[in-house]
Amino acid sequence: MSDPETRAKKLDAEDELGAKRAEFVLDDRDDAVYLDGNSLGALPVGVPGRVEDVVRRQWGELRIRSWTESGWWTAPERIGDRIAPLVGAAPGQIVVGDSTSVNVFKALVAAVRMAGDGRDEILVDATTFPTDGYIAESAARLTGSTLRPVAPDEVPAALSGRTAAVLLNHVDYRTGRLHDLPGLTAAVRAAGAVSVWDLCHSAGALPVGLDEHGVDLAVGCTYKYLNGGPGSPAYLYVRAGLHDRFDSPLPGWNSHAEPFGMRSEYEPGTGAVRGRVGTPDILSMLALEAALEVWDGVRVEAVRAKSLALTDFFLECVREYVPEGRVESLTPVAHEERGSQVALRCADAGEVMERLIERGVVGDFRHPDVLRFGFTPLYMGFTDVQRAARVLAEVLEG
Amino acid sequence: MSDPETRAKKLDAEDELGAKRAEFVLDDRDDAVYLDGNSLGALPVGVPGRVEDVVRRQWGELRIRSWTESGWWTAPERIGDRIAPLVGAAPGQIVVGDSTSVNVFKALVAAVRMAGDGRDEILVDATTFPTDGYIAESAARLTGSTLRPVAPDEVPAALSGRTAAVLLNHVDYRTGRLHDLPGLTAAVRAAGAVSVWDLCHSAGALPVGLDEHGVDLAVGCTYKYLNGGPGSPAYLYVRAGLHDRFDSPLPGWNSHAEPFGMRSEYEPGTGAVRGRVGTPDILSMLALEAALEVWDGVRVEAVRAKSLALTDFFLECVREYVPEGRVESLTPVAHEERGSQVALRCADAGEVMERLIERGVVGDFRHPDVLRFGFTPLYMGFTDVQRAARVLAEVLEG
Repeated sequence: MSDPETRAKKLDAEDELGAKRAEFVLDDRDDAVYLDGNSLGALPVGVPGRVEDVVRRQWGELRIRSWTESGWWTAPERIGDRIAPLVGAAPGQIVVGDSTSVNVFKALVAAVRMAGDGRDEILVDATTFPTDGYIAESAARLTGSTLRPVAPDEVPAALSGRTAAVLLNHVDYRTGRLHDLPGLTAAVRAAGAVSVWDLCHSAGALPVGLDEHGVDLAVGCTYKYLNGGPGSPAYLYVRAGLHDRFDSPLPGWNSHAEPFGMRSEYEPGTGAVRGRVGTPDILSMLALEAALEVWDGVRVEAVRAKSLALTDFFLECVREYVPEGRVESLTPVAHEERGSQVALRCADAGEVMERLIERGVVGDFRHPDVLRFGFTPLYMGFTDVQRAARVLAEVLEG
Repeated sequence: MSDPETRAKKLDAEDELGAKRAEFVLDDRDDAVYLDGNSLGALPVGVPGRVEDVVRRQWGELRIRSWTESGWWTAPERIGDRIAPLVGAAPGQIVVGDSTSVNVFKALVAAVRMAGDGRDEILVDATTFPTDGYIAESAARLTGSTLRPVAPDEVPAALSGRTAAVLLNHVDYRTGRLHDLPGLTAAVRAAGAVSVWDLCHSAGALPVGLDEHGVDLAVGCTYKYLNGGPGSPAYLYVRAGLHDRFDSPLPGWNSHAEPFGMRSEYEPGTGAVRGRVGTPDILSMLALEAALEVWDGVRVEAVRAKSLALTDFFLECVREYVPEGRVESLTPVAHEERGSQVALRCADAGEVMERLIERGVVGDFRHPDVLRFGFTPLYMGFTDVQRAARVLAEVLEG
């Protein structure tokens, strides 16, 4: 087998997504590798110009008229429909707005209400990104339910006639483990409970298949693999068949059947609009819309294939360069269990990450001992991967 | 008395805030008058450059490092402290983020929890902007309380030992009526209940005096008189003495005592940070921060004096130009009951507003028969006011 550098060049030459890299603003320093796109995606080149137009012309010149003339009012559903094919959803089921945490709250309370009487338990992924757990606790408290943390693979055994809702992560934020969305969703459905999936670490990195697998509700952020920018608005998916039963705990005026009727009685709108709350955050929302244009012509299957090739190659380079025993991968070896990141357990991980960043190799540190590297198929190449692994080895030896 | 045009010129010449107009992007057409700053404030000239820097340099070049190096992480409280003097609050009590509706929800649920056992009724302004009523209904439902709509001046009589929280608007969105914040807050406190004020239509237009009058909780938007841009993030004020008792229904990871500890147990942070939820929306938030710079050196008392002079002069011009009986002002005559807008009831108000907008005089229409005109003292002059009234008369006669 040839050396990693040669293999990287060959893989880059064969990369069907290679041309996409030019659609992002990336460091031009040769030794810089951005492996934190699973935390904050890189800037797509089309975004600054669009944002400038939104600020100077739409806001500055048209002002209030832009709510209709620049399509501000309909942006949450329009951008939702742009995200839909990336997560396997037909149009009309996704609305963009608010943070992921707020959307988890909407989804969970609505899920408990849908589940109906006699179901008073919420199951939550015990290894979840903390905010989902905190919000689930609040949703349980406010709906008079019990919250029960369960490891994802123990969910089927934990389901019962008491289960109202199950909140799961598609990909674990720490280890990068990909959970079995089709199987777990089917189990939840079979138990008569409502499934809620958090797609923060999967959407834009691998196929999700929301419609195909019969997911009930889902949420996700847009600033990781979707490159929407810092704190860009999250989204909420409600399966079309559940729209009429979606009873939001945050029924703001934007979700009203007649928002400008200014009626004192609340009457929910029809469809995805029920997931709206207050006035949408236009600057961030339209920056996201511009960012989503990089997905034109991209097949999610090609993204997934490249993502797996990138993480495989990274693990291969780590094995080749890093002394055995110095790091331990927490990321599953099996493709069907792997997301688009690699988590390496390592002594002094915090300090190691600081030194990597000084060298231009940017990942992140997750307490207490994890080096986390994200692989973003739209703008990373195999040479980046090889270089990152080599710098990691140098830092670990130094 | 001289004619309105001459009086307008004299008033403009004496205007201590006149120079502020140059800090905003305004139409250069002579006949255009923007009277919708109470819905979407005009663009401050400093905003586009700042946003460009945030997008191109902070996001595009520094990427994830900006969370610390560009002050992204601390923006919600930093910008809260910038708003604080405009609403009479000492630093450390305001956090920026989420929509007004979401903040009303946080405030009301937290208020009911603070009020304690035996208090199971929420009073809400019966004339409120609808979203506050819808969200109050949800907060009541989720906390097992009863919601009771009451006209603001009937609140003192409606208070009882059952009252947990009272949600009021400082200025009525439709009529422009200014409610008695000091008196009503004192009455709510005397009854042992928690006051929640919505400042959307007052902050930036008149003194609020949150600390001085002992307000418990307050929320407000930033895209009206604070000119933060379309859908810019709202804010939440929690009186310092109540921070330890502020028990949020949306305890996202950003409000945790140790957000990067990634702990599964929720432990709220100290101070205003408790009002945070998820990842803050940085583009919109930093656009708002740039917009707030126009307040440097501005006394809120001067804004209030000019606001009253503008609305007085508008009513005077309407009396002078518009045939008697054609419109009826819903806005109180007494200064102590007037916000910074004028609402005129008028037959065919929808159509009249369309024709006004065609002529460049932009206000808004509120169902079913109200012409609403907002007066923004930082960038409106008296000649604008005179011209708007004259065009209104022409349209009404036409």
